[in-house]
Amino acid sequence: MKNLLENIEEILLMGPGPSCVPDQVYSALSRKTLGHLDPYFQIIMDELKEMLLHIMNTQNYLTIPISGTGSAGMEACFVNLVEPGDKVLIITNGVFGMRMQDVASRLGAKVDALEFTWGTPVVIEAVEKKIRQESYRIVAVVHAETSTGVKNPVAEIGTLLKGSDIIYLVDTVTSLGGIQIRMDDWNIDALYSGTQKCLSCPPGLAPLSFSDKAMAKLNGRKTKVPNWYLDITLIAKYWGKNRVYHHTAPVNMIYGLYQALLLIFEENPENVFQRHKESHLALVSGLNELGLEMLVEEPYRLPMLNAVRVPDGVDELSVRRRLRNEFKIEIGSGLGPLAGKIWRVGLMGHTSRKENVARLLMALQEILRVR
Amino acid sequence: MKNLLENIEEILLMGPGPSCVPDQVYSALSRKTLGHLDPYFQIIMDELKEMLLHIMNTQNYLTIPISGTGSAGMEACFVNLVEPGDKVLIITNGVFGMRMQDVASRLGAKVDALEFTWGTPVVIEAVEKKIRQESYRIVAVVHAETSTGVKNPVAEIGTLLKGSDIIYLVDTVTSLGGIQIRMDDWNIDALYSGTQKCLSCPPGLAPLSFSDKAMAKLNGRKTKVPNWYLDITLIAKYWGKNRVYHHTAPVNMIYGLYQALLLIFEENPENVFQRHKESHLALVSGLNELGLEMLVEEPYRLPMLNAVRVPDGVDELSVRRRLRNEFKIEIGSGLGPLAGKIWRVGLMGHTSRKENVARLLMALQEILRVR
Repeated sequence: MKNLLENIEEILLMGPGPSCVPDQVYSALSRKTLGHLDPYFQIIMDELKEMLLHIMNTQNYLTIPISGTGSAGMEACFVNLVEPGDKVLIITNGVFGMRMQDVASRLGAKVDALEFTWGTPVVIEAVEKKIRQESYRIVAVVHAETSTGVKNPVAEIGTLLKGSDIIYLVDTVTSLGGIQIRMDDWNIDALYSGTQKCLSCPPGLAPLSFSDKAMAKLNGRKTKVPNWYLDITLIAKYWGKNRVYHHTAPVNMIYGLYQALLLIFEENPENVFQRHKESHLALVSGLNELGLEMLVEEPYRLPMLNAVRVPDGVDELSVRRRLRNEFKIEIGSGLGPLAGKIWRVGLMGHTSRKENVARLLMALQEILRVR
Repeated sequence: MKNLLENIEEILLMGPGPSCVPDQVYSALSRKTLGHLDPYFQIIMDELKEMLLHIMNTQNYLTIPISGTGSAGMEACFVNLVEPGDKVLIITNGVFGMRMQDVASRLGAKVDALEFTWGTPVVIEAVEKKIRQESYRIVAVVHAETSTGVKNPVAEIGTLLKGSDIIYLVDTVTSLGGIQIRMDDWNIDALYSGTQKCLSCPPGLAPLSFSDKAMAKLNGRKTKVPNWYLDITLIAKYWGKNRVYHHTAPVNMIYGLYQALLLIFEENPENVFQRHKESHLALVSGLNELGLEMLVEEPYRLPMLNAVRVPDGVDELSVRRRLRNEFKIEIGSGLGPLAGKIWRVGLMGHTSRKENVARLLMALQEILRVR
C-alpha cells in the first residue's frame, strides 16, 4: 500500500488556520511519548501551565489545555458554566458567535443574541443597554471573529461587567498569541483558545482558563456537568497536585504546545505582536496596490485574519485553487453571508512574516492579471 | 528558559497505555501540516477511514476518528445515542464500565448496572436474564477491561441482542488492534476506541463507528444532541462527500493514526494478534517462574493487559518507582478496589514484543530479589 504521507507537500498556510508550524514544534511532536502520569511529564505540564498563565496574563489556578480542538474549548466553557435556564447573552457578529448560540442552546441556556452586521464591530453602547435591560448569568463574545476579521472590544465589555455577578466568557481562538490578551485586567472569567492559529502548533488542544468566579459558579452547580469528558472539576484534579487520572492526556500534542509557547517567549510576546502588526500592514498596503479592498474598516481590523473583498467578475474559487495548486498557498473562503464575497487571508503565528506576504502578493498579482 | 523536551528519556511503556510508538508514527506526526479542507488531506482522510473499516471489520458508513482521546469516544457514543429517559443497561466489571454509568447518567439515561466482581468476566446467562426482564434501549459493555485485564464475551452478548431493537454499544479502547474485533458479525451498533493502546499511536484520537441502526436512533432524536463538539450528525458532514467545515480536525494526529494503521496492515493484523498472544504467554510463563500470580483466570485473560498480583509484603509503589527510575520501564498500578493489590502490565501494540517482556522480567527479578 502506498504511503500517502510521503507525498505531503509543504503548503504555505495563509487561511483561517491551521497556520504554519515551526520546525521545532514538529520536532516536539515526535519526541518519545511518556506516560500521562510519568513524573517527568508532570514537570512539563507544570511549565506549560506557567506559560499559559503568562500569555493569557492571568493568575487563575485553573489554566489548562483541554484535550480537543478550539471548539472543544468553547464546549467546555459553556457545558461547565451553563445550568439549564441560565440567561446567556451572546454578542454576535460572525460564525463563531452563532456557534456559541448553538452550543449554549443545546445545554438548556436561555440565549439572547445581540447581533451586529458581519464585518462590523460590536458597539459597546448597545451592549451596555442590553445588560441593563436584562439580568444575565453569562455574557459571551468572540475576541477575534475568524469569519470576518473583526476585532471586538473585549476590554471595554469587561469594564462594563466589572463588579457584577455576570460571568464573562471570551473566545480567543484566533487572538491568543497574536495580539495582547489581559484576562485578569479585562475581568474575563472564562477564556478558551486553540493551538492552530497564532500559537503555531497543529490543531488538537484548546487552552482554557477559569477565574475563581467561574470556578465558584461551577462548584455551585445543582447538577453534575452533563459531559464527563469535559468536566473541569475532574480535569482539574489531574492538572492539580494529586494528578488523579481522568483521561489519558494527549502527551505529544502537549509537547507541541509546550514548544510553541517556548518559542513565543524566546522571541518575546511583544515582538511577536509587533511582527503580526507589521506583516498585516504590509499585506493591506500590497493588496491596495493590486486594487483589492478590505472588508473591515481600518480601526477594527485584526492583524492575523484579513478579510479581502473578491473583485467583481472574479471567480473566487478558481483563484484559491490556482493559489493552492500552482503556488502552494492556502487561503480561506468566506462563510455564511460572506461566502463568495471575501477571501480570508491568515497571518497567524509562524505564517505572519513579510516574506510570506510578498509571496502571496506576487501570486495574486499573477493570477488576477491573467484571469 | 531550559527546554524540558530535550531531556525526555525513552521509557519502555508497559503500563495500561500509552504504549510504545514506532519511529514511523513519530515521523508521521511531524509531517508538514495541511489545511483541514486541503484536497490532499481529504485523500488521507478517506484512506484512513478505509483502514478503520478493515480493522473493525465493518461496512459502516459512519466510521471516523473523533477529535479527542478514547474517553471522548465514550462520551460521543452516549451523548449521540442517549435521549433523556432511555433505559440503558451497563454491564460492569471494572473502572470503564463504572465510567460508562457516570457518562450515561449525566445525560439523563435511566441506568441499570449489571455488576460482576472485578477480575472476573461477564456471565452471559446473567445478561440474558437481565435483558429478558427489562426493556432496554441501549446495552453497553467494555470488551477489554483495562482496569482488570478481563476479556468480556462481546460476540456472545451480540448474539443475544441480534434481531432486537436494542442498540449494542461496545468499548474497544484497549482491544482494537490487539485482538480480533468483528463489529458487523457481532451485531455491534456503536463502537469506540483510542489510539494509544494497541494501535501504538500517541493519545489524542478516538476511532468510532456507528451502524445504520445507531444512525437511525440518532437521526430520530426529538432534541438536538446536547453537545455541539461531538454531534455526529455534524461531524459526518465533514467526513462525508461535501467536507462541510465543523471544527478544525487535528491534522497531525490524523497523520499519526494513518501511519499506525498502515503498519498494522503491513504486518498483517493476524500476525499482530499472534504477536500479542505470544508475548502475553511469555510474560505469564516468566512471571510464574518468579512466583508471581495473575489476577484473572486463564480463559478470560487479555493478551494486552496483564493484571499481576502484588506479593504479600511487597510495596507495590516502590517497585514501580524503581522500574521507572532505574530500569526506564513504566507499568501501571491497580485502580479502585484493586489499588495496591495488582500491577497492570501492558503489552500493547509496538510494546508487545518478547524482548520487552524479557527486559521487564529481568528487572522484576532483580527488584523483587533485593527488596
